[in-house]
Order: sequence, then C-alpha cells, then structure tokens
Amino acid sequence: MRIVLDGMGSDQHPVPDVEGAVLASREYDVTVIITGQKPLITAQLKRYDTRGLKVEVVDAAEVVTMEDKPSVVVKSKPRSSMHVGMQLVADKQADAFVTMGNTGAAMSIATLGPLRRIAGVKRPSLCAVVRLPTHTLIALDIGANADASPAWLEQFAIMGSVYGERALGIARPRVGLLSNGEEEGKGCELTRATAPLLKRAAINYIGNIEPKEALRGGADVLVMDGFAGNVFLKTLEASTSLVSNTLRDELKRSVFTMLGALLAKPAFKRVRKAMDPFETGGAPLLGVDGVVIIGHGRSNAKGVKNAIRQAKLAVEGQLIEQIRAGLAQTGATQNESHTPA
Amino acid sequence: MRIVLDGMGSDQHPVPDVEGAVLASREYDVTVIITGQKPLITAQLKRYDTRGLKVEVVDAAEVVTMEDKPSVVVKSKPRSSMHVGMQLVADKQADAFVTMGNTGAAMSIATLGPLRRIAGVKRPSLCAVVRLPTHTLIALDIGANADASPAWLEQFAIMGSVYGERALGIARPRVGLLSNGEEEGKGCELTRATAPLLKRAAINYIGNIEPKEALRGGADVLVMDGFAGNVFLKTLEASTSLVSNTLRDELKRSVFTMLGALLAKPAFKRVRKAMDPFETGGAPLLGVDGVVIIGHGRSNAKGVKNAIRQAKLAVEGQLIEQIRAGLAQTGATQNESHTPA
Repeated sequence: MRIVLDGMGSDQHPVPDVEGAVLASREYDVTVIITGQKPLITAQLKRYDTRGLKVEVVDAAEVVTMEDKPSVVVKSKPRSSMHVGMQLVADKQADAFVTMGNTGAAMSIATLGPLRRIAGVKRPSLCAVVRLPTHTLIALDIGANADASPAWLEQFAIMGSVYGERALGIARPRVGLLSNGEEEGKGCELTRATAPLLKRAAINYIGNIEPKEALRGGADVLVMDGFAGNVFLKTLEASTSLVSNTLRDELKRSVFTMLGALLAKPAFKRVRKAMDPFETGGAPLLGVDGVVIIGHGRSNAKGVKNAIRQAKLAVEGQLIEQIRAGLAQTGATQNESHTPA
Repeated sequence: MRIVLDGMGSDQHPVPDVEGAVLASREYDVTVIITGQKPLITAQLKRYDTRGLKVEVVDAAEVVTMEDKPSVVVKSKPRSSMHVGMQLVADKQADAFVTMGNTGAAMSIATLGPLRRIAGVKRPSLCAVVRLPTHTLIALDIGANADASPAWLEQFAIMGSVYGERALGIARPRVGLLSNGEEEGKGCELTRATAPLLKRAAINYIGNIEPKEALRGGADVLVMDGFAGNVFLKTLEASTSLVSNTLRDELKRSVFTMLGALLAKPAFKRVRKAMDPFETGGAPLLGVDGVVIIGHGRSNAKGVKNAIRQAKLAVEGQLIEQIRAGLAQTGATQNESHTPA
C-alpha cells in the first residue's frame, strides 16, 4: 500500500511530518510518499535510520499556509504539497492522502482539484473521530457545511456509518441525529426534515441523540450540520481543557494538593491518554473520490503516524467503494427535494 | 420585595423548595410566597424555625409534572402552582416568580398565560447563566426557539445584555455571536444575517465568538439560536461530567492514586464549586412581562435559595423596565424583515 503524506502540513513542518512518516513506514509496512520541498524533506529524513523502510519523496515547490484562502488555493498554488499529493492519488499512483495542514484548503483542493467528489455525492463532509474514555465517536459534519439540507445530512449519515464499519471495524454502527431532545419531533426544522430520510436509509438509525448520550456511548455516529457540529466538537474540546486547566491551577495552591497530584499522576495521565485527540490521528474527509485524512496542525510525530494508520485502515476497508455502494443502496444519490434555507 | 416560589417545582418537591424559601427569606430579607398544595407546604414549613420570617403560602390545587405537555398545560391545569404563582406577579401582588419545575411548561404558561410577552418582543428566550472558573457567561437562547430569525437573535442579544448589566452587575457586557470562526463572514446563514443587526444595536457587540473563547472569558453574553445553544450548553455539561467521572474512576485504581486524591481533595472541591450550576440558581426567561427564573429540577435547597437571590437582583435592577428601554433604544421591536426558514 502506498500512502502520500503532505510533508509541509503541520505547524512545525517538516519535523513531525517526516518523523511520523518514518514511524508509520516502520510500524505498518506501508510505503509513505512525502510531498514537499525536496531538499528540506530529504535533509530531515537523513536524521532517521531509514534503511529497509519504504519512504519516498516527491517534490512540490509550493506550500499551503494557514493564511491561504481555501477558495483560491487550488488555482493559486497548483504545485503545493497538498495538490501534488492528491494528484498522485487521483492518478492511482498512491492509495490515500494524509495532511496536517490547512483544513479548509485541503477540503477545497480535494473537492475542486484532482480528486473531486464520488459520483452522486452532494457535499463532502469532514468527519471527526472523537476518542472518548469508553468508545470512539464518529461526528459529522464538523465544519465543511455550515448550512446543510436534509438530503446532505442523509448522505453524511451513510458515509459516517460506512466509515465506522469499514475503517474502524464497528459492526452495524448506531447512527444518531444530534438534537435538543431524544423524543421524536424534538429538534429544529432541519433535523425534523432529516429524520424520515434517515429512517428509510440502509443504516442502523437510532433516532435523536443529545450530546450527553452521545458522549456516554449511546451512538457510534453522530450526524449534524457543520455549524452545530463545529459547536459540538469545539465545546467538547474547550470544556475538557477548561476542567483540566482549572484543576491544574487549583492543585498548585498548597503543598498537600501538590503532593496529592504527584501521587495521583498516573491517573491524570491515563485520563489524558484516554481523551488524547492525537491518538486517533485525524479527520477523514468523506465523499471525495479518494481516501483523505486531515490531522491537526499541532500534531506531533505520533499524531502523524496515527493519521497514516487511519488512512491505511480506510484503504484496507475499501472505504471509497463501500461509500459508493452504501449511497446506491439507499438511493441517496437521487434527486434532491430539499436545499438549505 | 415579594417573590413567589413554586413549591411543587423540584424533583423532590416540596422539600428543597420549602427549605430554599426559608433560607432565602432569612438571608435576603424578602417575602417568599410559596404556591402549592397548602396542607403539604404548611406541613413542610413546620419543620423549620420560621419565627420572624416573611414566608406565606398560597394554595394551588394542581401540580405540573415533567410529563405535562407545555402546549396544553396552560389550559389543562389553570390551578397549577406555576399558573397561580405567575398570576400573582401579573396582578402586581408579587415582584418575581421562581420555579424548579418543567421548563417547557413554565415558558409556555408565562408566555400564553398570566404574564405574556413584553410589548414588541417577538419571542421569549431562555437564558443560561453559566458559572465558569473565571467569569459568568450569559448564554441565550438555550432551548426556547430551536429555529430563530436574525431579528429574534437581535432581541436576545439586547435582553441578554440588559440582564448582564442590571441583574449581574456587569458593566457594558461584551456580546458575542456564537460561530464556527472568529473572522467576519464565518458562520451559517443565520449568523451572517444577524451580525449587521447586532452591529447597529445599542449593545457592546464584539463579533463572532467560538466556544473556546467564550469559555475562556472572551464574552459576557453569547447569542445563538436555541438549537445551537442547547448543543453548546449540554455539551459543556456533559464534557465536564465526563472528565470528572473518568478521573474519579481512574483515581480509584491504585492505593497511591487514592491517597493522592485524598490529599488533593480541597482542589477537587474548589473546581467543583467553581463550576457548580446550583451556585447561580437558575435560568431567567427573558422577554416575558415579569421576572421569571427557572431552576434545575435536581436543585437542592441552596439552588432554590440562589434562584430566589437571582430573582431579587433582577427586580432590584428593574430588569423588565430596562429590557423595554433597551429594545426601544435599538428600535428592535420594529417590523421584522427576516423569519426563520
């Protein structure tokens, strides 16, 4: 299997990116093709013992920055490490693309550039794989579509379910619709219009789900528009940091609590690990015609390695073919009766 | 000052309700009028030393339960402790109404029953007063209006700002619009159409705010539709519980971490207190023509007492008159150009 990694993606590129590529190649027996400015990538690679590893470098002169506007980057930087990398996947010279770079730019290049959408897909969806203490929650859309229609949400639900089943090995993922109440009929106009579509879809739909229930393990896939999804995910991240930071500050207030914290350190460490976003690796962009995983810009080498593992699992699970089949089975690629307001 | 308390509101009514009334009357020098089934309330009151306290009981034969449908309860139970209590406020026999009961029912009885909306208010809004380690965040709407229009959000912003200033004593509250990005132009259709209205409103509008920034103290008032607001608030609550519960479980795993937890106990306690929702007391229902505070069904006596304090502060701040003035100043009660999709 050949996986392309954007060597210029992370905030500290190419350091964590290249190290992650080396680790992944060693651990997962995949070929990692790093795209980026060749002299830079090659120099960084020399710091590791790569004998016997399948790591290649493909030159790409341009770098997408956090300042690049997603809407123009596909035209303005056709030689970027993202663009060149996705082209390799489109040309069947590689099986998947992984980047820690600008999310909006990656989505835009994937959709408008080399990969394009899977036939019949109305909108690609960015999908969070949220690591929780007791289970893994697939949440989508988390930002690609701030306004969405019921027909889009139906496709998100199918794609999220296929991802859970094929890339994460969850049998018959339970798909819930994020809402402000569990009862049928609760929700906003969008969710009320979406529920009937999800009921008829070839997925294991379990109805409305509130945030509490979703975080407790009540659903495997949580479906929502990109605005609500962004609020959900960012509030989750911000709240957990808030609690940890407040506790850390309070623990420093006296010698006794500091000593207590020292003794309790293994427990704190386990909690941190149980909820570490870098343990999953990244967010799959679903609906484009190729496996694309977008990791966090702050990722360390372990995060990059795990994102590559995620891509590998998706390729092994034949994600794209299965999404195609899933959409066809439900007839969800047919004409659309709703559009966002 | 005379404050009505629904004696049949909390899950454990009338026990925490009556005790909270006694505590509040003792501490804040207010008259508390408890509505509910008189024999029950009177029997409960006898358990406390109420000499010198101003606590009265007004009989109300019916009880609103969690199963009562908000849409019909105003007609089906006209003698409920909620209905009778709000009638006292409408009749100027009391200054404010406080309940720990069914939120939907309380909103519905307030709006369709005795109190009605303040003239020109399009929709009442339920407003969370979120206690955070560093500051208090006013978040609205949190559930009354799952679909909202820009003009409604404009009114929510004004009402939330007035509440912050007059009931919580925040000078020139910074009002932010919940969004999926800080930059102008980010957001969904609703928020993009709302931003210009907030700019021209007579409030201290600071633009788009993401959850992280809001929780860090970047805004005093956070405005959103009831669906996003519900997702925000419930995700916040669920995430903080998730971290605490996971940590508690992990701390129990070894003798060392248990000992550590014991030593660190004061720190844990301070964190819990810093984020305890019962410390604020309840959620004001803004836009109805009378001060209404809706507390949590799980409230203990301290929660009830604090909800009564909240009502007292709102009355002292002349909340209703100030909301009227605030809406008039912005001209926000004029004709509406947007309705929800």
